Amino acid sequence: MTVLDIPVSLRWADLDAYGHVNNAAMLTLLEEARIAAFWASDEAHPGGPVPAAHHTALLDSGPTANTLTLIARQEVEYLLPIEYTRQPLVVRLWLSHIGGASIDVCYEVLLRGTVHAIALSTIVLVDAASGRPRRVTSQEREAWDAHVGPPVEFRRRR
Amino acid sequence: MTVLDIPVSLRWADLDAYGHVNNAAMLTLLEEARIAAFWASDEAHPGGPVPAAHHTALLDSGPTANTLTLIARQEVEYLLPIEYTRQPLVVRLWLSHIGGASIDVCYEVLLRGTVHAIALSTIVLVDAASGRPRRVTSQEREAWDAHVGPPVEFRRRR
Amino acid sequence: MTVLDIPVSLRWADLDAYGHVNNAAMLTLLEEARIAAFWASDEAHPGGPVPAAHHTALLDSGPTANTLTLIARQEVEYLLPIEYTRQPLVVRLWLSHIGGASIDVCYEVLLRGTVHAIALSTIVLVDAASGRPRRVTSQEREAWDAHVGPPVEFRRRR
Amino acid sequence: MTVLDIPVSLRWADLDAYGHVNNAAMLTLLEEARIAAFWASDEAHPGGPVPAAHHTALLDSGPTANTLTLIARQEVEYLLPIEYTRQPLVVRLWLSHIGGASIDVCYEVLLRGTVHAIALSTIVLVDAASGRPRRVTSQEREAWDAHVGPPVEFRRRR
Repeated sequence: MTVLDIPVSLRWADLDAYGHVNNAAMLTLLEEARIAAFWASDEAHPGGPVPAAHHTALLDSGPTANTLTLIARQEVEYLLPIEYTRQPLVVRLWLSHIGGASIDVCYEVLLRGTVHAIALSTIVLVDAASGRPRRVTSQEREAWDAHVGPPVEFRRRR
Repeated sequence: MTVLDIPVSLRWADLDAYGHVNNAAMLTLLEEARIAAFWASDEAHPGGPVPAAHHTALLDSGPTANTLTLIARQEVEYLLPIEYTRQPLVVRLWLSHIGGASIDVCYEVLLRGTVHAIALSTIVLVDAASGRPRRVTSQEREAWDAHVGPPVEFRRRR
Repeated sequence: MTVLDIPVSLRWADLDAYGHVNNAAMLTLLEEARIAAFWASDEAHPGGPVPAAHHTALLDSGPTANTLTLIARQEVEYLLPIEYTRQPLVVRLWLSHIGGASIDVCYEVLLRGTVHAIALSTIVLVDAASGRPRRVTSQEREAWDAHVGPPVEFRRRR
Repeated sequence: MTVLDIPVSLRWADLDAYGHVNNAAMLTLLEEARIAAFWASDEAHPGGPVPAAHHTALLDSGPTANTLTLIARQEVEYLLPIEYTRQPLVVRLWLSHIGGASIDVCYEVLLRGTVHAIALSTIVLVDAASGRPRRVTSQEREAWDAHVGPPVEFRRRR
C-alpha cells in the first residue's frame, strides 16, 4: 500500500486565540489535501489545464463539475497542538475502503516527522445533475486500489 | 436527562461553492454552541459582565482565562446538507461522559425540527498556567450531571 | 437620516493568535450586517418564510436568487482591537450613495458604545441570470432613501 | 522599484455560495502574502529555522514574537471575480510609504497575468511587550527602500 504525502500550508488565520490551529481549521487542511489527491486538473480554465500532482486525481469536481464530493462522516483525533509555522504540514493520505459510491479516506497530519492529528473521512460521490450518489468507476477503482490500506487507528473512541 | 437547545446563526461565509454549509464550518457552529453551554460570563470586561444563558456555563475560559478547553477528538455525521437560512440552527447538546479531566459532548444539529448532523466532541480541561489537564471540579460535576445521557448513535462508523 | 443598528455576534474563530478579531473576519461581520439590512426573507424555505427585521431588506438574494450582491470596493479603518466577548457587536449601518446599479454602505462597528472600526462598501446589484448589473428599483430607492447620509469619515486615507 | 511576486494558493473554503472567492477571504490571501514578505523565519522552532524566501522578511513576528503587525487601515477593489483554481494566485506586493512606525503595503492580485483585485494596507509595528508602536529600524528601512513605489491607483474611490 502506498500513501500519498501532500504538503499543505498553514495560514495565520487558521490559528485561534489559543495560538494553535483551530479544531475546525484542521478539517479545512484535510479538505485541501483531499482536493490535491482526488480532484482532476481544472482543465476548463483559460490558459490551459493545471495538471494534478497525483495520478489518483481523477474526479471532475469543483463547483461546475459532474461529480460533487460530499462528506458523510468525519472523525479526528487531535494528538498535539499545532502552532504557526511557515513550514508546510504533510498530510499523509490513504484509503481504507472503496465502496460502491463512496470512499473512506485516512489521514495522518505530520509536522517535522511527528504525527499531530489522525482522521478519517467518508466521501460520497454524487452526480451533480441528479443529486444522487454515483458509482465509483473502474478507472477510479484501478487508480485508487494501490492506496488502500488498513484504517487509521483511533485511540480515544468510546 | 435534560438537553440544552442552543440557537446558532449561520453566516453566509459558512457556505462553500456547493451552496451548503461547509464540513469544517459545521465544527465552528458546534464550537459556538459549546461556548454558550460551558463558558462563564466574560466578567472581566469593562461595562460589566455578560451573563451566560445556561447554568452549565461555569468554565472560566477564553484566551486570558484559567482553563483552556482543548478538543481531543471529534466525530461528525453529516446527514443532510444545510443551505443558507436566516433562521438559527438549534444545536441540541448534552454530555455522554464526565471523566476526570475531560467531558464528552454530544450534539444534534436541528433545522426546522429535522436533525441535519450529529456529533461528539471530547474536551479536555487544561490549566492555562501549567498547560496540564486539570480535574473537573465538584461544582462543575454537580451542574453538568443533570445533562448526562446516552451517547449520540453514529450510523456510519465502521 | 436614520441609521440601522444591527447586532452581530462574534465567534471564537474570528480571533487570531493575537487574541483580537482578525482583520479579514471584520469583513465577515460587516457581511452579516449587510445581509440583515438588505436581504429579503428566505421565503422559499419549507416551514415558511423567516421575516427580515428591517424594512430595507428587499433584495431577493442568496445563492439561488434573482439578484447577486457583489462587492466592488471596500475600505476599513481598524480603530481599536476587539477581544472576544459574548456580547454582540452593534454594526451601525447607513447608505452614503444610491447609484444606478450600486449602493455605498457605511458602517460603524460599536462595542459598549465605542466605535472600534469604520468602513464603507460599494455593492453592485447583479442580475443572476445575465450576470450583468441591474438597476436599483424605485421600490428599493424609496425604502433606502431614509437611510442616506454623509459618508463615514476616514482619518487615515492618504 | 522592485515588486515582490508572491504565490498564494486558494483554498476551496475561500469560495462562498456564489462560487467566487469571498470578499473577506481576499484579505486572508493578502495576509498570507504579507507574512511571506515581511515575517522572518520561524527560527525558534525545533528542527531548525525555515528560511524566508524574501530578504524583506525581517519582522520577528507571529504570536510569540517581539513585534506585532497590526492592520490600521485596508482598502480593496475587487475588479474581477475569482473562481476556484488549483493554480496559485500571484500577489504582487510593494510599499508606497515607510512611516515612523508604520508601512503602507500595496497589492495587485494576479491570475493568469490579469489583475483581479488591487489593495492597500497600512500596517503599524507594535512592540509586543509594551503594546505601543515601535519605530521602523534602519535595517528594515534599508531592506524595504528598494520596494517603495507609487501607491496603487484606486478607480472607484469617492
